[in-house]
Amino acid sequence: MRAQGILAAEIEFDVAFNDVDMVGVVWHGHYLRYLENARWALMNRLDYGLDRMLASGHAWPIVDLQAKYLKPARFGERLRARASLIEWEHRLALNYLITDVANGMRILRARTVQVAVDGRTGELQFDCPADFVDCVKSALVKART
Amino acid sequence: MRAQGILAAEIEFDVAFNDVDMVGVVWHGHYLRYLENARWALMNRLDYGLDRMLASGHAWPIVDLQAKYLKPARFGERLRARASLIEWEHRLALNYLITDVANGMRILRARTVQVAVDGRTGELQFDCPADFVDCVKSALVKART
Amino acid sequence: MRAQGILAAEIEFDVAFNDVDMVGVVWHGHYLRYLENARWALMNRLDYGLDRMLASGHAWPIVDLQAKYLKPARFGERLRARASLIEWEHRLALNYLITDVANGMRILRARTVQVAVDGRTGELQFDCPADFVDCVKSALVKART
Amino acid sequence: MRAQGILAAEIEFDVAFNDVDMVGVVWHGHYLRYLENARWALMNRLDYGLDRMLASGHAWPIVDLQAKYLKPARFGERLRARASLIEWEHRLALNYLITDVANGMRILRARTVQVAVDGRTGELQFDCPADFVDCVKSALVKART
Repeated sequence: MRAQGILAAEIEFDVAFNDVDMVGVVWHGHYLRYLENARWALMNRLDYGLDRMLASGHAWPIVDLQAKYLKPARFGERLRARASLIEWEHRLALNYLITDVANGMRILRARTVQVAVDGRTGELQFDCPADFVDCVKSALVKART
Repeated sequence: MRAQGILAAEIEFDVAFNDVDMVGVVWHGHYLRYLENARWALMNRLDYGLDRMLASGHAWPIVDLQAKYLKPARFGERLRARASLIEWEHRLALNYLITDVANGMRILRARTVQVAVDGRTGELQFDCPADFVDCVKSALVKART
Repeated sequence: MRAQGILAAEIEFDVAFNDVDMVGVVWHGHYLRYLENARWALMNRLDYGLDRMLASGHAWPIVDLQAKYLKPARFGERLRARASLIEWEHRLALNYLITDVANGMRILRARTVQVAVDGRTGELQFDCPADFVDCVKSALVKART
Repeated sequence: MRAQGILAAEIEFDVAFNDVDMVGVVWHGHYLRYLENARWALMNRLDYGLDRMLASGHAWPIVDLQAKYLKPARFGERLRARASLIEWEHRLALNYLITDVANGMRILRARTVQVAVDGRTGELQFDCPADFVDCVKSALVKART
């Protein structure tokens, strides 16, 4: 079973004019916006969108980010950003890959780590909240059947 | 000789209203703008500002980024971002530390790696261009005397 | 003949997490990014995309902006932004309307004015460059036939 | 009595690398971030910062924006943004002027209109809330004595 395929989501979008810097390529910081959008696409697919997250009383700050910029992207290019969940026991780890839709070339690889925080007390949770883990398990079960 | 102290620069700024997300903390992607500003403060201090970079015919894309988010920052807080040059032979590596000015608490630690690219051909340079290395050496000599 | 219908383009998109401020609504400045994307959709439809603009040697800075914010938009809502060309003789004027796709409610109305500037001399052009006007005329003729 | 002088605040800042577009000038949408910062500087000066606004239970969405772009700004230039309160009875109207610190040249003029909204009910307030008007009156009295 390829859990990675199930626990992943993709978005496609065009590079905006104002994402490009004076050198003519996407400014490196803007990729984090693309990753954010891909991450929410995955969360929605897992049925853990904003409403459910708010209802669960947890926030999920990013605590660690790694990115490798492989090839610059330019205005008007169509990009695909894929987010894959790779850890969900004690913390949330996602891998990302951004590619150029026209030629499949790799633009950026990244990983983020998030931890669950109790929204009222601000306390760090050492295990991922049960309601989130349930969403992951449901997605895995649904894919198997 | 503490080269690190010489090859560093700091900026201070207030967290803007529009840098804060719906959870009430700085959205993680905005920190890259703070790092960018600190990096240029360092480049200016090394006498390698935009004009000199353009004159040298090189671009310096970021190829690797690592960030650890230690503590969330909030609207109106005054932050200090420090950029330190730690490698300049084959590639440019910088360390960053963002702290809360009011209490010295650490907000973010990060590292970026940049490579020099020939602006005309787009070719990767396996050594940092001589004019940049000269700027670093001048700064080190100046500090010694 | 409804020139307005011909000289218009629409985009659709989802409001991103990081476009929402601490009050929970899209920060007003981000709408200009949505307008920028709608404007380029129109320019591409008129066959006057970035390549042609660069080839023509003109830049088109925005010199005037007016916006009325009618209703706040929130994270995850799907919006439609429509850009319509309403003046193209001496200067470029566009009208914009952003609506909520789910219910058709109006989110924002705006107008921008751009002037052509000679890219080499920086001189303001008092008439829109002929190549741009030709693009508009072609679009109008094509629509008639 | 020059109420305008009393009910105004200024900020200074350097144009960031990532605020500049591929044409080499500040992308027009980023100026709204500069205006936002100048507006909060004024609000803080009037003793109506975020804490007081939240305590008052009102939000102040921008409902109208007008901007005239007079001269492009570039990377590294130091700008001054001045926000002046010009209406505070039924709605909040501010004028803005952004100038180049080095030569005093005018970069942008703008006006924003905000209305007060009850934070719980979302209802529009047809008069500015008393606590805000009190802040304005206190500032005017203080300036007279």
